[in-house]
Amino acid sequence: MKEVLAIIRINKMNETKRALADAGIGSLTARKVIGRGKGKVDYLLLHGAEEGYEEAINQLGPGPKLIPKRMLNIIVTDDKVQTVVDTIIKVNQTGAPGDGKIFIESVLDSVRVRTGESGDDAVTEEEAVATK
Amino acid sequence: MKEVLAIIRINKMNETKRALADAGIGSLTARKVIGRGKGKVDYLLLHGAEEGYEEAINQLGPGPKLIPKRMLNIIVTDDKVQTVVDTIIKVNQTGAPGDGKIFIESVLDSVRVRTGESGDDAVTEEEAVATK
Amino acid sequence: MKEVLAIIRINKMNETKRALADAGIGSLTARKVIGRGKGKVDYLLLHGAEEGYEEAINQLGPGPKLIPKRMLNIIVTDDKVQTVVDTIIKVNQTGAPGDGKIFIESVLDSVRVRTGESGDDAVTEEEAVATK
Repeated sequence: MKEVLAIIRINKMNETKRALADAGIGSLTARKVIGRGKGKVDYLLLHGAEEGYEEAINQLGPGPKLIPKRMLNIIVTDDKVQTVVDTIIKVNQTGAPGDGKIFIESVLDSVRVRTGESGDDAVTEEEAVATK
Repeated sequence: MKEVLAIIRINKMNETKRALADAGIGSLTARKVIGRGKGKVDYLLLHGAEEGYEEAINQLGPGPKLIPKRMLNIIVTDDKVQTVVDTIIKVNQTGAPGDGKIFIESVLDSVRVRTGESGDDAVTEEEAVATK
Repeated sequence: MKEVLAIIRINKMNETKRALADAGIGSLTARKVIGRGKGKVDYLLLHGAEEGYEEAINQLGPGPKLIPKRMLNIIVTDDKVQTVVDTIIKVNQTGAPGDGKIFIESVLDSVRVRTGESGDDAVTEEEAVATK
């Protein structure tokens, strides 16, 4: 069982959520974070700032500014990790700085509070399509 | 040393916090998240929506809606993990969808900033009852 | 590759961010959390409450109150972990309760969404100084 932590742009949240649901990944948690990546300046970023994009302007500011982002926590069985990573990349890769990062951590166990089920059973989503 | 990540209902936050303190688990962090579980529809949920419960209505909406939740991070020595899990289940298990999930991850090390103590000493709460 | 999770005082956020950038740690995410440490009462805390410090008053309240904090997630290669820990302690250690905690967890893999790079390459910050 693995936890996939993904830091993505705010405006990619809905599309990412939908793409994950379409890929059969129904369970996730999201939260607001502020973050900073490498801080590398490139022409795309400069161009973005000239065009008035707030994120580009912020990244070019005088200090190590932090930019609002969304962080997703997605916990899945090992066989789903690649699907989650590929789906997030497909939706979020624009080629511009700020596309985000994905981290994968190990999860020792999982418990579904409603039923007390633990292990892989607690993260399996056999009936996730019902409300879509 | 383990990290217990629990995603619970907002309205169970205070009771959970108290139950954990009573069980000797004083240290925790909590944050607002939005999340989605399996999305399974059942009669209890339909009934909840009919009665006007916002969470039930949201879960029955047209898309994969995300519901406000609380996420707790609780880092404890290995011997306390079961107590934490049992306490969270006892308070949060209603039998209805949305009761939440608990995940357990491994923590390599811990440092108390005030003293520089590390290892299990940094998460031991020998005097946690003083303010209760 | 490791994830350093640090829970610090809100008013130490900017100084911590700058100190990490100066130490070559450019990438981080931060979020608002509410938290509670050991709950130990000591004279420093009592004194703080008498002087009207809100954090001290909250900690001395009747229940296990939760205090607003910032949580940082910093993911670095193994050789940078000690630098991150030392930098956070240097900025945040006042000797008073509430200085915070640092936790270290293992990260299995990391992916930079923009390029698809994975592994240590995805968290290396070779050009992080450009915007400082």
